Amino acid sequence: MVIVMDTDATSTEIQAIVELVEAAGGEAFVSRGVSRIVIGLVGDIDHFAMMNLRGMPGVRDVVRISAKYKLVSREHHPDRSVVRVGGVSIGPQTVTLIAGPCAVETPDQTLAAARMAQAAGATLLRGGAFKPRTSPYAFQGLGERGLQILAEVRQETGLPIVTEVVGAHDVAMVADYADMLQVGTRNMQNFTLLQAVGEAGKPVLLKRGMNATIEEWLMAAEYIAQRGNLDIVLCERGIRTFEPATRNTLDISAVPVAQRLSHLPVIVDPSHSGGRRDLVLPLSRAAVVAGADGIIVDVHPQPDIALCDGPQALVDDDLRELARTMEDLAGFMGRHLATQQDLVAA
Amino acid sequence: MVIVMDTDATSTEIQAIVELVEAAGGEAFVSRGVSRIVIGLVGDIDHFAMMNLRGMPGVRDVVRISAKYKLVSREHHPDRSVVRVGGVSIGPQTVTLIAGPCAVETPDQTLAAARMAQAAGATLLRGGAFKPRTSPYAFQGLGERGLQILAEVRQETGLPIVTEVVGAHDVAMVADYADMLQVGTRNMQNFTLLQAVGEAGKPVLLKRGMNATIEEWLMAAEYIAQRGNLDIVLCERGIRTFEPATRNTLDISAVPVAQRLSHLPVIVDPSHSGGRRDLVLPLSRAAVVAGADGIIVDVHPQPDIALCDGPQALVDDDLRELARTMEDLAGFMGRHLATQQDLVAA
Amino acid sequence: MVIVMDTDATSTEIQAIVELVEAAGGEAFVSRGVSRIVIGLVGDIDHFAMMNLRGMPGVRDVVRISAKYKLVSREHHPDRSVVRVGGVSIGPQTVTLIAGPCAVETPDQTLAAARMAQAAGATLLRGGAFKPRTSPYAFQGLGERGLQILAEVRQETGLPIVTEVVGAHDVAMVADYADMLQVGTRNMQNFTLLQAVGEAGKPVLLKRGMNATIEEWLMAAEYIAQRGNLDIVLCERGIRTFEPATRNTLDISAVPVAQRLSHLPVIVDPSHSGGRRDLVLPLSRAAVVAGADGIIVDVHPQPDIALCDGPQALVDDDLRELARTMEDLAGFMGRHLATQQDLVAA
Amino acid sequence: MVIVMDTDATSTEIQAIVELVEAAGGEAFVSRGVSRIVIGLVGDIDHFAMMNLRGMPGVRDVVRISAKYKLVSREHHPDRSVVRVGGVSIGPQTVTLIAGPCAVETPDQTLAAARMAQAAGATLLRGGAFKPRTSPYAFQGLGERGLQILAEVRQETGLPIVTEVVGAHDVAMVADYADMLQVGTRNMQNFTLLQAVGEAGKPVLLKRGMNATIEEWLMAAEYIAQRGNLDIVLCERGIRTFEPATRNTLDISAVPVAQRLSHLPVIVDPSHSGGRRDLVLPLSRAAVVAGADGIIVDVHPQPDIALCDGPQALVDDDLRELARTMEDLAGFMGRHLATQQDLVAA
Repeated sequence: MVIVMDTDATSTEIQAIVELVEAAGGEAFVSRGVSRIVIGLVGDIDHFAMMNLRGMPGVRDVVRISAKYKLVSREHHPDRSVVRVGGVSIGPQTVTLIAGPCAVETPDQTLAAARMAQAAGATLLRGGAFKPRTSPYAFQGLGERGLQILAEVRQETGLPIVTEVVGAHDVAMVADYADMLQVGTRNMQNFTLLQAVGEAGKPVLLKRGMNATIEEWLMAAEYIAQRGNLDIVLCERGIRTFEPATRNTLDISAVPVAQRLSHLPVIVDPSHSGGRRDLVLPLSRAAVVAGADGIIVDVHPQPDIALCDGPQALVDDDLRELARTMEDLAGFMGRHLATQQDLVAA
Repeated sequence: MVIVMDTDATSTEIQAIVELVEAAGGEAFVSRGVSRIVIGLVGDIDHFAMMNLRGMPGVRDVVRISAKYKLVSREHHPDRSVVRVGGVSIGPQTVTLIAGPCAVETPDQTLAAARMAQAAGATLLRGGAFKPRTSPYAFQGLGERGLQILAEVRQETGLPIVTEVVGAHDVAMVADYADMLQVGTRNMQNFTLLQAVGEAGKPVLLKRGMNATIEEWLMAAEYIAQRGNLDIVLCERGIRTFEPATRNTLDISAVPVAQRLSHLPVIVDPSHSGGRRDLVLPLSRAAVVAGADGIIVDVHPQPDIALCDGPQALVDDDLRELARTMEDLAGFMGRHLATQQDLVAA
Repeated sequence: MVIVMDTDATSTEIQAIVELVEAAGGEAFVSRGVSRIVIGLVGDIDHFAMMNLRGMPGVRDVVRISAKYKLVSREHHPDRSVVRVGGVSIGPQTVTLIAGPCAVETPDQTLAAARMAQAAGATLLRGGAFKPRTSPYAFQGLGERGLQILAEVRQETGLPIVTEVVGAHDVAMVADYADMLQVGTRNMQNFTLLQAVGEAGKPVLLKRGMNATIEEWLMAAEYIAQRGNLDIVLCERGIRTFEPATRNTLDISAVPVAQRLSHLPVIVDPSHSGGRRDLVLPLSRAAVVAGADGIIVDVHPQPDIALCDGPQALVDDDLRELARTMEDLAGFMGRHLATQQDLVAA
Repeated sequence: MVIVMDTDATSTEIQAIVELVEAAGGEAFVSRGVSRIVIGLVGDIDHFAMMNLRGMPGVRDVVRISAKYKLVSREHHPDRSVVRVGGVSIGPQTVTLIAGPCAVETPDQTLAAARMAQAAGATLLRGGAFKPRTSPYAFQGLGERGLQILAEVRQETGLPIVTEVVGAHDVAMVADYADMLQVGTRNMQNFTLLQAVGEAGKPVLLKRGMNATIEEWLMAAEYIAQRGNLDIVLCERGIRTFEPATRNTLDISAVPVAQRLSHLPVIVDPSHSGGRRDLVLPLSRAAVVAGADGIIVDVHPQPDIALCDGPQALVDDDLRELARTMEDLAGFMGRHLATQQDLVAA
């Protein structure tokens, strides 16, 4: 059950609902999105239905959930949402370029990658401190030391940070450093983690499971939304098919399909989809005109010695060409490339 | 084994090679492409290798095949090819719009669809007279009567015809009417059919098998090329994955990947990939900026009563918007939309 | 539309129906199965429906088809069928072992493989004379010379022959030599070929497309049945998935699922499913207890020098162990291994 | 890096290694398997390599890891392992039947299901208290109350308990109740959870990710092993393919393939693979003769009212028939069905 509050509902009105529900043995999760406040209720729905919640001050609507997902669905929220990350917008008016190293390795490498990203036109810095790797013997990331490096680089450059969190118990710590929490493809159905990031008070980048249907992806987003966090950006990153020429198969149709089903922004990761540097540019172009709200790419100052996914990382010229192309195609789509000016103005 | 002839080799020089090979118990298939003539040899390779073919007049090179495909590979033919269909170009300078009804139903429906296609900017007419259908109880097409309708419509409109052939024994008959022979997704590995269209003297549109790897697709093209026909256009039309939101999953990466591996033009079918009218426009945009050399779409004057694939067919306004968008994006890619002027000039 | 005739309907009664339908501009295909005779009608169904076909002598039932497949469905034919190939049964009482070389290479190799197969307990000989190969540069089989070799080996051993046909125009020629026509996985939706084997008067082994759903497989069988041939054996041979450890993934569930949906026998090809010799025995055991009506395996006297699929071919001891195990498990399933005695008695 | 200790190495010898490694800034995880003790080292491998660990008392071997997995590989451990759960064996001599309700709903339902399972011949009780569900609005399980019910039922019946844990922070609590911890298909690459169960001191049932390759599955097991726990049982439960007739496609080949690559026991879940009650028996038979070391099935006293996966749950007669069949086929494979006597004797 979901309670939709007036956008000008007061804290006192919200608190009154929460207390009433908890007194009835339930749990209430408050979600303050850009355009509305919702309270998700978990517990004895039949009992809640008999309480006169609809008559409480500040309540606009009370909705019993029957669909598989609702808070993230477009059916109940026709306008597409804007998610703001450290002042940078991701939404229907802009195309946002997120760039950075797959893995944070050293302060120098991270700063060099960030400067390269910023110079080209990226407005958000991605970088992994915790790397979920298929083999336990692969490089797993620097952990909290990596987060500190990212924070130092943000200090230097002003770029907000997007970084992955791999376990529920790390969420609070990662959220202390990050501007946006990333949930990776292997964790898309780690429901404990989804709930934890739902309560962390930071925007979330939710990558599609490499084997997940679009509906399952939206249900995973609903897990986050249900805990009071509607600042979710969906990221298509390729699905597993029989085709071996690319690491995964970018499901370009997923962009318009997900945008029709959900009001959440949808971005594309062309680096991990293809796993090949030569495909990043054509796939990025395709993503922007398919309607993607942004692109997230790997960059590395020296791809040949990268500890993680070097073969797909862009370097200087490639990245500048990518940014220029995105700017042109954003214009074609009636949008603009999110810029540093947006960041300052926000 | 393949013999590459000088581009100015004479018929007599070519015939001399053929006779020599046949005298040795082998078969020789002459291929006159846009930029070269090759003779493919089938039979006892070791024996051919001992004949002094390289010393024969007009021979530029003799190549033993070790790769899985060679005539269609870009490695041995760095310039991307142009295929001409009834005077219309498909190749790296243009983006060609092919449109028409999935199935030819009546003269009126076909003419209406063709006029709609032509008015919007399409320069080739697609239309199925032979429909390979999964169920034997589904509409299988009008057969030769359908081809006659297509020929009448070509007479009226001047649009060259692309139409499918489903069996080797029909190739000669279909080739009598068609300007380009289409091999459908279910027949991509019908090797008998591939060889027959390879000998038919008409350009071929080879759809990717819905479950075929890119390498298998190129090997299928090689079957056609080996019989002397290099006027092949590859068509990506979606692959089978676990995702149910779309009929198939458009493998957009296949466009740049296939163009890197092969010199043949690559076009995209956004209608059959998604199976949904609302996806045709975003997928077409994506295809053009991913580098596709053309788009083939279903149109129907009255989609609601179509005998085949109505839910994905475009009508007037949609098609005009598609053509306008393609023209703009073609310009962005340094190309132009193939026009009727190209047709007249050719 | 399908007309089901009494099992004792006379040729004259059948011919009367056929003439009536043809006089009405339709086509009629007579199918004499083991347990019934059906006449499939193609043409103007509404017109046929108004003719009083049900009142004609020898007619038991007239059925309008609405399902995607009907002649092969179990719904209208609850008893599972038995298909006889040169006197050998494939059906619910037996488990039939079909063995032989993937490709016929020489008379000696074929005879050696056949003797090995027969000594172990196989009662049908498989062997490919026409090999549909993904690459045009791979060994394509000996063609008609291969069929002659198979016929000579049948003469020597008494084993009926199962062999593949790859094009509609070859069907008559292959049917002159073969006891059972095989349609391979790449041709499962070659509808022209399906129709041709439907009219050839020989039992058909229909391999599942490596990417086909079970429903599509049954619709392919319906194409054959509709042309008057119900002597069809379905063969599961592995489907294409993301798992690289095996060539394809044997879909063991397909055996009981297909047997519930269709009355046709279902056998399993463990050699091509796994592509590994070490998996043939465990997969064969699994197939028999999942209810398969037979097993078809590759054998080769010298796998190391096989021109085709050597890595999966069995040799003497392996094959004998396989046959012994199948015999035991057939007994466990209340069946028996089809033997030479069955062959003689039939 | 892994240190293999003599099987009679003393606690003091082991502790000495651990302290040395920790003093060098690394981490050491002690694994006491059935047939050996290993210490996994994480940290600066080059530094460890220079310490003379091989010369320490009790050390048999020091191995630098280069493979993607090693502790679970068969290459370094040729004998297949036996895992004991509350006295019940899972390994190469036995076929173990694990049965119980998909979800624990009430004490009565759980006890009835357990008695049904025990009467038929099952020796381990499965039951979910924490259910990872795709939709946040589906029944998520009773949580700790469900574990209490399971513990009460164990008290009544003597059956050890297998139950799922869905988050790293729940591991200690679930391990207090459970005899074996299950990691579900959606969590196969939840590396935080894998590490937590690796340290929990209880055997682990690791389900294959529905989209994971066999190699990825073994690397996931390696994560557990590396934390000192080699009591891991692998469970094949179907993979995601394009075939819609079954919920997933049971990859029967995965049983022999995984057993060749790893020494760990491999069992099969026929209930979740097919998602259909009528497939449980044929798939179970197939699993046993493919070499599976056990079967895990859903049972429910009243499937029609089950809160979770009712359509696939077995009831009395089905389960007894399954157990009888497994017993016969276990005999055929030179094994026996793990019985209550084994439990008492252990």
